[in-house]
Amino acid sequence: MKIAFIGLGIMGRPMALNLLKAGHDVTVWARRAESMAPLAEAGAKTAASPAEAVRDVKVVISMVADAPDVEQVMLGDNSVAAGAEATGRRDLVAVDMSTIAPSAAKAIGEKLAARGVDFLDAPVSGGDVGAIAGTLSIMVGGSEAGFAKAKPAFEAMGKTVVHVGASGAGQITKACNQILTGVHVMATAEAFTLARRAGVDPYKVREALMGGSAYSRVLENHGKRMLDGNFKPGFKSWMHQKDLNIVMNSAHELGLCLPSTAATAQMFNALVGAGYGEDDSVRALTLLENMSGN
Amino acid sequence: MKIAFIGLGIMGRPMALNLLKAGHDVTVWARRAESMAPLAEAGAKTAASPAEAVRDVKVVISMVADAPDVEQVMLGDNSVAAGAEATGRRDLVAVDMSTIAPSAAKAIGEKLAARGVDFLDAPVSGGDVGAIAGTLSIMVGGSEAGFAKAKPAFEAMGKTVVHVGASGAGQITKACNQILTGVHVMATAEAFTLARRAGVDPYKVREALMGGSAYSRVLENHGKRMLDGNFKPGFKSWMHQKDLNIVMNSAHELGLCLPSTAATAQMFNALVGAGYGEDDSVRALTLLENMSGN
Repeated sequence: MKIAFIGLGIMGRPMALNLLKAGHDVTVWARRAESMAPLAEAGAKTAASPAEAVRDVKVVISMVADAPDVEQVMLGDNSVAAGAEATGRRDLVAVDMSTIAPSAAKAIGEKLAARGVDFLDAPVSGGDVGAIAGTLSIMVGGSEAGFAKAKPAFEAMGKTVVHVGASGAGQITKACNQILTGVHVMATAEAFTLARRAGVDPYKVREALMGGSAYSRVLENHGKRMLDGNFKPGFKSWMHQKDLNIVMNSAHELGLCLPSTAATAQMFNALVGAGYGEDDSVRALTLLENMSGN
Repeated sequence: MKIAFIGLGIMGRPMALNLLKAGHDVTVWARRAESMAPLAEAGAKTAASPAEAVRDVKVVISMVADAPDVEQVMLGDNSVAAGAEATGRRDLVAVDMSTIAPSAAKAIGEKLAARGVDFLDAPVSGGDVGAIAGTLSIMVGGSEAGFAKAKPAFEAMGKTVVHVGASGAGQITKACNQILTGVHVMATAEAFTLARRAGVDPYKVREALMGGSAYSRVLENHGKRMLDGNFKPGFKSWMHQKDLNIVMNSAHELGLCLPSTAATAQMFNALVGAGYGEDDSVRALTLLENMSGN
């Protein structure tokens, strides 16, 4: 399938490579030419703009930093929408796989629809490890027809691909994912802090709780790294902070009270404020121990 | 092995029955004679007091409601300690399997030690289902020697038996268990509330997240019951509220800041205040939806 890929950072680059490996015909675009070089070496075509990249593809995918970047590549000058309009086509499917606010995704979808482009929001979880391995979880919002067209691309990049609902539903699902992983990290750090301060070996606590109803993937993976003092990301605290900010803004827009998420979001603010933004969120344990003078 | 069992409620009764099934010689005592009848029918001896029950046993187990009950049966009139003193023995192991404050468990252990009784705190998780099936998780604090003596009894009642550390370590581990399960229930309810209010099917969100880093046993089991509107306990909200109160008191004693646990403990107060105390804690979803006018 002919696919355009926009945004070739830590996530985008391996995702585009996996599309090539699966035999797709890939055209790439990135703001900086040097980001495109490794993809060109691997067999991708390069384009001078998003508009040029989408000229004769079925699906265009963006993997950028935040909503304004998505707006720009999808709707700005020399954008995906401009490219579709220039060729008069109405069959392009645009997929954004960045994590942005659900309301922003819905708004972008509406603006693209008005310009003849079908839009899917399809954020991922699994990090750069999952991007490299092609084992991402992909949560998709948008039309059935668009999902069907983009599915071969998703299958080259991810292991679990779920079409959750209408436009915005992918981002809502990602927001739920970030609630659960963020709150689980904080709860695990709080439990370990209690154990350690009470003179109980937190490794033994983890072992005792792994088999029961307290089990979480975070207790297993993040919990181990937390106790080992391995703060290498994983997923950087500032990125999780950004995602929890999206969650709290959505809660504000929708008039929702999310107490444990709110407490956790505050702790992620503190993580970044304390200078741990580039570390993995398992730094939550350090933060709690600092707070209680350990 | 000769074992005395004190407290024959929803948990204690099946636990004592499993000791009998495993071939142990069991003497029971409960405040109300009618609680002892089904155990007597199953082959247990009955005693007129804790003091009488422990006369010639190696291990005595209590499974009662809260710290004052443990104090009374272990240290009060006609108690375990009184029985041990009456026979002049210094080899009795007393095991409390109730969930009480870690500091209370340590204090009871010290008082029993002064009267020649070795004390273990050995709270459980797994609920009445685990008690009946003999698959409880048992988290034990206390001496190596005491643990070794009581181990055959633990193995008749539980599947996972971990000797976590010194006196009080079992209750600390249980407190960590209640942090994780409580906070996970709240985070799951918050994620589902966000999804539902945003018009996204929470069943699909759960399905999309089950395979990834957001997975928890709570998302799998409680999450399903939550969405099905199945509020049958399980574990009653008022009991989890009691346990989170123990956690927050321990945090206060130790000078610890546990933000996500604190927010969750407040929500459990609200659950009980709203009249859901006898329901399972998956009522958290109802509570959040009531709060946001759904």
